[in-house]
Amino acid sequence: MEEYRLLGELGRSKALRLLGSVSLGRLVFTHHALPAIRPVNHVVEGETIIVRATAGAAITSATGRAGVVVAYEADDIDPATRLGWSVIVVGTARLMTDEVAAARYRARVRPWIGGTADDVITISAELISGYEMVPAAAEAAR
Amino acid sequence: MEEYRLLGELGRSKALRLLGSVSLGRLVFTHHALPAIRPVNHVVEGETIIVRATAGAAITSATGRAGVVVAYEADDIDPATRLGWSVIVVGTARLMTDEVAAARYRARVRPWIGGTADDVITISAELISGYEMVPAAAEAAR
Repeated sequence: MEEYRLLGELGRSKALRLLGSVSLGRLVFTHHALPAIRPVNHVVEGETIIVRATAGAAITSATGRAGVVVAYEADDIDPATRLGWSVIVVGTARLMTDEVAAARYRARVRPWIGGTADDVITISAELISGYEMVPAAAEAAR
Repeated sequence: MEEYRLLGELGRSKALRLLGSVSLGRLVFTHHALPAIRPVNHVVEGETIIVRATAGAAITSATGRAGVVVAYEADDIDPATRLGWSVIVVGTARLMTDEVAAARYRARVRPWIGGTADDVITISAELISGYEMVPAAAEAAR
């Protein structure tokens, strides 16, 4: 018997709002033909997610070319009750080469870890999906 | 000025132990040639991560073939202090077709969300990496 269940999908605007309500997410990309994932910090501006990549050269070498498709995930899930939400964005990641703009974002987005590599990467959200979990009891009571 | 910094890498055994200390992680795979990520629950047995995929057919259709390389990430990071750890495993994911064994794991791994799709997927950990963050002050005091 499941105690909790999925309650439909989040709309695009609510998903973006939830994404903007937290600062930590996970950047998913391809590195040496293998799936790779790194925790990073982000801010959301409109439909663009801006992250600071201090996790090493793996991300920036992948995005340094014309731009690559990545996924970005953030969630806020209570480990005890398993209630919460998860938002997944798929979009094109590009290295921010405008140093003035990059400096502005560095002032707003704290790096997840300190380090010497410190690039600013923008992800234009193309596909946005999100789920929210509520107690099955709450759903049954509807 | 960074308040926190990276304190080296976690060894393979400590990384697996930390991974086994939490139940929620994120499965990273390729779906329709795009990077995809889904939150799932897991247990760790030796160097194998076992997950229940109730998040939809995307994962199981990808692993239903001979096995695909996926990444798996779990972390425990304090959003306020940004201290904690992150472990990333890369390995081959296979659908568990032995229904007796699958039923055994279903009894141990709770699904993250309720649903009709309920496959058990094993990931044999090939590459294991992990990081742990401690306060820079603690490191400076060494």
